[in-house]
Amino acid sequence: MNGVVIKQIGDISIGDSAYFAKTVTEADVMMFAMLSGDYASHHVDESFAQTTLFKSRIAHGMLTAGLICPVLRLLCGDGSTTRSQEIAFKSAVLLNDTVTVKGEVTEVSEDDKVVTIEVVCTKQGHVEGDRPLVLGTFKQALVV
Amino acid sequence: MNGVVIKQIGDISIGDSAYFAKTVTEADVMMFAMLSGDYASHHVDESFAQTTLFKSRIAHGMLTAGLICPVLRLLCGDGSTTRSQEIAFKSAVLLNDTVTVKGEVTEVSEDDKVVTIEVVCTKQGHVEGDRPLVLGTFKQALVV
Repeated sequence: MNGVVIKQIGDISIGDSAYFAKTVTEADVMMFAMLSGDYASHHVDESFAQTTLFKSRIAHGMLTAGLICPVLRLLCGDGSTTRSQEIAFKSAVLLNDTVTVKGEVTEVSEDDKVVTIEVVCTKQGHVEGDRPLVLGTFKQALVV
Repeated sequence: MNGVVIKQIGDISIGDSAYFAKTVTEADVMMFAMLSGDYASHHVDESFAQTTLFKSRIAHGMLTAGLICPVLRLLCGDGSTTRSQEIAFKSAVLLNDTVTVKGEVTEVSEDDKVVTIEVVCTKQGHVEGDRPLVLGTFKQALVV
């Protein structure tokens, strides 16, 4: 994903797909806490986190959602921006989980240069029928 | 927002509100690029960014959305997690813009311990009638 890729709306087709995978580390979670200002205990305090349903610290949902950005970029190119999104968080991301994000173009609106992308995030080792981590729908606008 | 605040569903009422404000710096945007893997040119390349509609680098939408997390925490306490969200991005956040996030509880479901929060993000200097930066609806679950 080096360099600049500019796409025109005619370059994008229904069925285009891309993926990105990343291991979510303790450093990532602490960095996101610093960035967002959200130091909630289930993200930063292992002792507290062990008393929760998850038995361990979990990543911020919005951090996992952030991993979707590179897929939107791969599909729509540099200079495209998100107009709207709907996300359902289905399962928690624990430290050192590897998250795979897959995106697929499901709609291309040539008139307003907006592309609809359906996204699913799964955990490494995910098997068919497992609950995904995140499901999302993104409307990405080509604004350059 | 120091220390741990645990809330029970009975502690939360329709009309509860909270806010958080933060100036989005160049360092924030570069850190989010590193964290997410999204180095799209309109976020990290000032020369490219000057050729776009925005005439300058803009923050990742998901970085702005991340600033909503502290408000969800203030309203629902530690150990609450986001079940789903809908976000509309209405206007770009430029470097050094100060973003104010306001959240208000609009629904409390005692049975499944889910709280609905309406969020609006505005830019400092925003006046009534200006276009907001972000509008969002969050379903926050109390899971501790």
